[in-house]
Amino acid sequence: MRLIGKEEIEDIAVGAALLGTGGGGDPFVGKMMALQAIEEHGPVKLLDVNEIDDDDLIVPCAMMGAPTVLVEKLPSGDEALQAFTSLEKVLNKKIKATMPIEAGGVNSLLPLALAATTGLPVVDADGMGRAFPELQMVTFYLNDVSTTPMVLADEKGNSLVLNTIDGKWAEKIARAATMVMGGSAMNAIYPMNGKQVKQSCIYYSLTLEENIGRTIREAKNNKRNAIDAILGLLGGFKLFTGKVTDIERKTDGGFVRGMAKIEGLGSNKGETCYLEFQNENLIAKTDNEILCTTPDLICALDTETALPFTTEGLRYGSRTTVIGIPADEQWRTKRGIEVAGPRYFGYDTDFIPVEQLNGKRGK
Amino acid sequence: MRLIGKEEIEDIAVGAALLGTGGGGDPFVGKMMALQAIEEHGPVKLLDVNEIDDDDLIVPCAMMGAPTVLVEKLPSGDEALQAFTSLEKVLNKKIKATMPIEAGGVNSLLPLALAATTGLPVVDADGMGRAFPELQMVTFYLNDVSTTPMVLADEKGNSLVLNTIDGKWAEKIARAATMVMGGSAMNAIYPMNGKQVKQSCIYYSLTLEENIGRTIREAKNNKRNAIDAILGLLGGFKLFTGKVTDIERKTDGGFVRGMAKIEGLGSNKGETCYLEFQNENLIAKTDNEILCTTPDLICALDTETALPFTTEGLRYGSRTTVIGIPADEQWRTKRGIEVAGPRYFGYDTDFIPVEQLNGKRGK
Repeated sequence: MRLIGKEEIEDIAVGAALLGTGGGGDPFVGKMMALQAIEEHGPVKLLDVNEIDDDDLIVPCAMMGAPTVLVEKLPSGDEALQAFTSLEKVLNKKIKATMPIEAGGVNSLLPLALAATTGLPVVDADGMGRAFPELQMVTFYLNDVSTTPMVLADEKGNSLVLNTIDGKWAEKIARAATMVMGGSAMNAIYPMNGKQVKQSCIYYSLTLEENIGRTIREAKNNKRNAIDAILGLLGGFKLFTGKVTDIERKTDGGFVRGMAKIEGLGSNKGETCYLEFQNENLIAKTDNEILCTTPDLICALDTETALPFTTEGLRYGSRTTVIGIPADEQWRTKRGIEVAGPRYFGYDTDFIPVEQLNGKRGK
Repeated sequence: MRLIGKEEIEDIAVGAALLGTGGGGDPFVGKMMALQAIEEHGPVKLLDVNEIDDDDLIVPCAMMGAPTVLVEKLPSGDEALQAFTSLEKVLNKKIKATMPIEAGGVNSLLPLALAATTGLPVVDADGMGRAFPELQMVTFYLNDVSTTPMVLADEKGNSLVLNTIDGKWAEKIARAATMVMGGSAMNAIYPMNGKQVKQSCIYYSLTLEENIGRTIREAKNNKRNAIDAILGLLGGFKLFTGKVTDIERKTDGGFVRGMAKIEGLGSNKGETCYLEFQNENLIAKTDNEILCTTPDLICALDTETALPFTTEGLRYGSRTTVIGIPADEQWRTKRGIEVAGPRYFGYDTDFIPVEQLNGKRGK
């Protein structure tokens, strides 16, 4: 167990933005909520996965909705409390700790804000090791943890307890409810015992986010190349460097879908990179070749600072370096690729690991 | 208390179709379910409102969804049981009886089918005295009974428990969930104690439906004019007689919206009647005058047999007599008109009681 204070939050927010692979909602919102909650209630206890008991009730929490809406419509904080209280009533058991469902964007920080407010500890883990757009795209689901009972609560005081036959139905129904609730809602989901967490989670996600943030910060202070430092930390690949010349984006069915067109600079001069996203970056390609696909992580970083761009943050003229990072091994199994691989999202291509696609480009 | 067997069901189904004012779903589906359940489990106990205790838990149940979907996608029966069991768990109390939420269409018969299956009695009452398209359009809502906790369950095994800040939010969220559940779902809603039922319900709805069915059946047997017999029973008005020459209908947002155009015959020759509906018939007018508006009941009956047409049943060439029936007094209050009057549905006209509009046309 260690304490997370304001300084750690700053680094975590940067790491969350990077692992968010363009989606997950701008972590700035979550950061502000976490900082304010820590200011009021003191630092948050971060638990190592091995510190939780096998029969402890652990409940991840997250905001659901299009990132473009999340950043406009701030959670009040009460909806998370309401979601937790409702779920405790349904399960007739006290929640011992919370954790992020995804390592990326606003949803990495929200559990910290909730934890500071309630005094609950946060487990240093998540269910994606990145951000993904749908509720069933978590390692808990890959390991047959039930998505429901889940609670969805909005800032107005409406809430629902959902019980579904599988995670995809939870996604469909909760998504529809979220849309009429105003485009975003808080959920408490995948209630698990400690043993299930240990078997299915991705370990040390918050610590990794903190390390990413620290690496970028220290590289800047030491005038080292921050992108190289990040690639070293994450075992990633530099896919493309260029300048955004076109960006299409629309909020549709609770998702932000679109594409950024990047004209190459330096060694990529003359080439064009197309970055397609559905909340998160899902595929990066040039006219001739695929550079990286989901479930591997595709991140567009500021070429100068290595700070990550969200898909909402990409602008005409942004100078960006696109990097690819191998996903957790759980995502590279047959089941993982079925759930979150390129074909699930409608791309007519098989998943090929980023290290195979980019071996020749080098780290 | 009296028993409802198969013969009563036949009459109730006809009355339900008539009070359904074109909507509520074709009662044929509910009738088949009720007949089958009674065949298997025996007759249903129908309770007089005054027979229930003030602290009995009474829970109405109904199908939600567009009538066009309801008749295509039959409930399995299990979803109603699941809805009741979930609600009992939430409220930690046994349900003593069920009742229809509306007196009209499939939703008059479904509680009888559920009651036969479970052995629960049915209260001889409802919350509309007719059919209406939205969940908050019930006398329970007019009397400040909470719409939630409500349960929505589909035939696949998905369910949700909803808690909302008011009835309109329950309608919005449940409607969105129903759409993704496949267009129809069962709900258990407005849980009430016996005292609340007595204060807010519309009394003797099932008996009235049975009387309507019997009146039409006996008029036919006795070669009397069935429409005149119905107008006498219900204090209604003959608004228009003619032949359907055009019908527009589309399923949209969980509702069936449209209009029937009726060319006059007999004393209405040369006139045209326009019947506009959103699941239910909401306004009947000619080129010059309004004949009847919601919340008063507008029913299109077969001119020969007096059997009611649903909005899905109206066809080019149908010979129909449109009648208007005064709504229950609860709907003619300021609050009632706000909730279900013509302006709520987007018509730019005040509510004028059908007896004032048609005094000159006579009964």
